[in-house]
Amino acid sequence: MPRLKAPQRREQLIQVATRLFAEMGYEATTTKDIAKKAGVTEPILYRHFESKQDLFVAIVRNVSDQTLKHWQEIIADSDDPAERVRLVAAAMPDHMKRLEDQYHVLHGALATSRDKKVLGVVREHYKQIEQFFGKLVTDGERAGVFRKEFDPKAAAWQLIFSGIGFAMIDLNLGGMDRDLIEEVIESILRGMKC
Amino acid sequence: MPRLKAPQRREQLIQVATRLFAEMGYEATTTKDIAKKAGVTEPILYRHFESKQDLFVAIVRNVSDQTLKHWQEIIADSDDPAERVRLVAAAMPDHMKRLEDQYHVLHGALATSRDKKVLGVVREHYKQIEQFFGKLVTDGERAGVFRKEFDPKAAAWQLIFSGIGFAMIDLNLGGMDRDLIEEVIESILRGMKC
Repeated sequence: MPRLKAPQRREQLIQVATRLFAEMGYEATTTKDIAKKAGVTEPILYRHFESKQDLFVAIVRNVSDQTLKHWQEIIADSDDPAERVRLVAAAMPDHMKRLEDQYHVLHGALATSRDKKVLGVVREHYKQIEQFFGKLVTDGERAGVFRKEFDPKAAAWQLIFSGIGFAMIDLNLGGMDRDLIEEVIESILRGMKC
Repeated sequence: MPRLKAPQRREQLIQVATRLFAEMGYEATTTKDIAKKAGVTEPILYRHFESKQDLFVAIVRNVSDQTLKHWQEIIADSDDPAERVRLVAAAMPDHMKRLEDQYHVLHGALATSRDKKVLGVVREHYKQIEQFFGKLVTDGERAGVFRKEFDPKAAAWQLIFSGIGFAMIDLNLGGMDRDLIEEVIESILRGMKC
């Protein structure tokens, strides 16, 4: 394994940890496993990450950043708030598939971890998503597209619940029918409009 | 530990396995751990369950049975299809809390397991829920309460996605606000009606 510069090494360790957490679960993976797979010693790993938790935090922050960046790009394609929600939701299956390992790690930790720091960074992730959708919904209510009586926070959580549930089924039990997903998205939008 | 009759021993082993799977994760728990905690030898455990997978299957079938029985009782309280969906959804937080360990095991396995038998029984679970909600929606469409253009299967999956996402957040990150949940339920119903 050639010597890498610090940022590349950090990136490599995140990638290796993501793969191992996704494969064996966060709890079952050790920093020893990660160092070995990355071709470095544990002390080198510890120069970049203080603990396994720190690696997890870096992975989740990565998912949050990539997800929000991707969605910001998507909503730039339309000024219509309903169409923006539709575009983000319609891009979800491919986005989740692209970040499949990362979402496995995130959902696996959410479902099984009792580590406060781990759950804390997961909470932060959803808080950011809540703000993103909350703003879309608020814009839509101001524009008269969405019903004003619906708390934007509740609407944001409706979208988050649906997204988590969809990902849990689609990524783990196999592809859901795309036409069915489209019907679900339209139903969610009707609930926000009517 | 007193000697138990076969059905009681089976029940006890399921309870112990549920607790251990919920605490340490399905993958990390061994039949040795389960036997020890139940105060029996492994050969005695194997008289009741051929494998750890078999214990998992029994737990998930238990969750399916209890959930459907509970929902059948709930919907008996109303003839109105929309009200039936509302009652089942409104009872979800307490129901999930009551079966918290079981749902931890189910969602943890869904998020992290790659075992075909394990995922197969999880798939069976959702198939039953799909049928339950599909029938409620079909009845509602026939009664003219729900929009006829919405595929009952898609409506059922919208409810399942929301339920999984809600449980993942509520059980693992802490209680969601009940008023917010009520708003989400009403939004889902508007989407099914409008």
